Amino acid sequence: MTVKQLLLLGSPVLVCCLFWTGRNVSAEPQGCVVRIAELEIDPAQLETYKAALKEEIETSIRVEPGVLTLYAVAIKGQPAKIRILETYADQAEYRAHLETPHFKRYKTVTQGMVKSLELIEAEPIVLGSKPR
Amino acid sequence: MTVKQLLLLGSPVLVCCLFWTGRNVSAEPQGCVVRIAELEIDPAQLETYKAALKEEIETSIRVEPGVLTLYAVAIKGQPAKIRILETYADQAEYRAHLETPHFKRYKTVTQGMVKSLELIEAEPIVLGSKPR
Repeated sequence: MTVKQLLLLGSPVLVCCLFWTGRNVSAEPQGCVVRIAELEIDPAQLETYKAALKEEIETSIRVEPGVLTLYAVAIKGQPAKIRILETYADQAEYRAHLETPHFKRYKTVTQGMVKSLELIEAEPIVLGSKPR
Repeated sequence: MTVKQLLLLGSPVLVCCLFWTGRNVSAEPQGCVVRIAELEIDPAQLETYKAALKEEIETSIRVEPGVLTLYAVAIKGQPAKIRILETYADQAEYRAHLETPHFKRYKTVTQGMVKSLELIEAEPIVLGSKPR
């Protein structure tokens, strides 16, 4: 199969890759969906929450071709304040992610642990990262 | 050109795709330095600022082994509000980055464009991303 054929098949993976790489820096990936989640977790349930989050992220990256990054970090000195930078190949892949069993399970399991959640829609300027 | 031909050429684009569905989740990288920069840019100078930012990011990723990610995004509907997720291999690499000519040039060039800058220290929980 040629690249042209793959492109004609409209593979989101390939389309995304074409904009994702090149000198390890992707400039404005076309159609990519970027979201920042800002959460505050009940401190008493923080470890349980983080375990559920890790499982959700690991599964999403492993089984969903359209989930590109899920970078979860905690604010230093405020471990219950968590931010996640989420990048999806396109809108369809993002919507599909929300319907997966692992995402739904994460939402159900963590429902009583999340004190607040803000979702911020964003647009890529430049997503620079080292190749692995 | 076939996929095999591209492979033989070592195309980063294709390599990316081939490993796209593989498992690549880095859990709690030891010693990593993570920082979130939140900036507000003078709207009249936004395009100039973004050009300087892109140049700085591309150079850092290309020439500095210890700069792992510089993900710059703008809040949707508020293009002058920019966030950058920065990941460095360790503290020494982070400090070295601040002393590079390209970083210093970026700081000087953009000095009059940045209305506000907040730097938030963070700690990784799980940094999930597709391999490229």
